[in-house]
Amino acid sequence: MTVKKTSDMRDGEAVLDAPQAQDAFVQFIGTIRTPFTTRDLCPRQGKLEGPDCRLELLPEWAAALKGITAFEYLDVLYWLHMSRRDLVLQSPKSNGTTTGTFALRSPVRPNPIGLSRVRLIRQEGPTLIVKGLDCLDKTPLIDIKPERCAFTPQAPHKDADKA
Amino acid sequence: MTVKKTSDMRDGEAVLDAPQAQDAFVQFIGTIRTPFTTRDLCPRQGKLEGPDCRLELLPEWAAALKGITAFEYLDVLYWLHMSRRDLVLQSPKSNGTTTGTFALRSPVRPNPIGLSRVRLIRQEGPTLIVKGLDCLDKTPLIDIKPERCAFTPQAPHKDADKA
Repeated sequence: MTVKKTSDMRDGEAVLDAPQAQDAFVQFIGTIRTPFTTRDLCPRQGKLEGPDCRLELLPEWAAALKGITAFEYLDVLYWLHMSRRDLVLQSPKSNGTTTGTFALRSPVRPNPIGLSRVRLIRQEGPTLIVKGLDCLDKTPLIDIKPERCAFTPQAPHKDADKA
Repeated sequence: MTVKKTSDMRDGEAVLDAPQAQDAFVQFIGTIRTPFTTRDLCPRQGKLEGPDCRLELLPEWAAALKGITAFEYLDVLYWLHMSRRDLVLQSPKSNGTTTGTFALRSPVRPNPIGLSRVRLIRQEGPTLIVKGLDCLDKTPLIDIKPERCAFTPQAPHKDADKA
């Protein structure tokens, strides 16, 4: 790791001085629509009582929503496409005190994947209306999963689960 | 969406009949070591009282762990590199009844990203010892975040947070 300062970095922040690996590909499965059209409008964390947001699936993935309305809470994964990916240490308070990227939920991370737990309000065809997001309008959607605590696997437990 | 049956598919399952988009790339930041060396050994869901597992960071990302031990629970994201990515409908019970991919936490999904909430046991240099994973040994690691409920942003709230 090398401390390589660029003009948009804060005191103490450190950047990875290595080429970015391209180990696997992400495919965007839809688009997220939120009222947050600029970064300043985005809350630092979404609220379950926040504004309605829309998860708009591409037509080819719409059928994969079958059964989703059985769940009140979902994990939503999205691609923070505006974020740099090379900061190792960050200074959220801009005061020279740094924290490691993995000890923060900052959008700046080696793989800029955002994760929010949202409440499902309703389904409208290929679109889910949810509350709890904090991301920019038009953020690419990459996954939706039933929230873990509410989810029970349908298949029987395997021997490994009994251990 | 076309129902295109391949020999490893179950009754009723449907596959996406479209080329896979390559919209963004993921870089692996380390490797996960678990006692689960075959798929049959993997539990369907990890348990917080399960066996110790290791998140082994690549050397260049180790510094990004600074401050991580302040958190007892972490969100861990990993790349389910053995999974097919084109199933729209799945039949977990192998009985012809199907559920959409997004209503399942199956490893088979358009972006095979696994998400587990784990308990941090201790840090050993570039490695975190955690409990709660369910993935295969040697699964590529892609992100670590403080678990949301325990995490309070360091920067002051923005006006948007007050809304």
